[in-house]
Amino acid sequence: MGVTELDEMIKALSHPVRRDILNWLKQPSQFFSDQEHPLSFGVCAGLIDQKTGLSQSTVSAHLATLQRAGFISSKKVGQWNFFSRNDAAIQQFLTRLNEQL
Amino acid sequence: MGVTELDEMIKALSHPVRRDILNWLKQPSQFFSDQEHPLSFGVCAGLIDQKTGLSQSTVSAHLATLQRAGFISSKKVGQWNFFSRNDAAIQQFLTRLNEQL
Repeated sequence: MGVTELDEMIKALSHPVRRDILNWLKQPSQFFSDQEHPLSFGVCAGLIDQKTGLSQSTVSAHLATLQRAGFISSKKVGQWNFFSRNDAAIQQFLTRLNEQL
Repeated sequence: MGVTELDEMIKALSHPVRRDILNWLKQPSQFFSDQEHPLSFGVCAGLIDQKTGLSQSTVSAHLATLQRAGFISSKKVGQWNFFSRNDAAIQQFLTRLNEQL
């Protein structure tokens, strides 16, 4: 994990909606129990949009930021995009930050 | 610690020079052993400028950002400004971030 990568990860966390999304994706069965597709695919972008109450394009930009930072991954199934947390990357980031500060 | 406060703290960490400064201030006697004033005052702004290799005004802006976020405090002695880490605030921040992610 280089300095630029770490910068990007920190910036990705600087918006409360992005931290909320990461938090919801930690326990999909608690926050997205009404998803019809299996939660093992991840959580459908549309349900994340709904939960934030923000527009599709805004949430899409937030998801892209989180994905560029390596915190989430996406999986395309048919016409849907499903998102899931990269727990290992998040843990690695927290460890690095704890060490550096 | 509110959401806005947390945002500001995260943004303050998003620049590598600001993380370096926090890290140096963790062990002033290792990084600023040539300071003439007692290190118990904190570290003089001028020595932090030198260590970064950046201009006084740039470093001053970085220090102001860290101070607004609550990560450092300043103490004015005569004509000098001395800076020190707020370890408690940094620990509180890390705990909060670990919990939230």
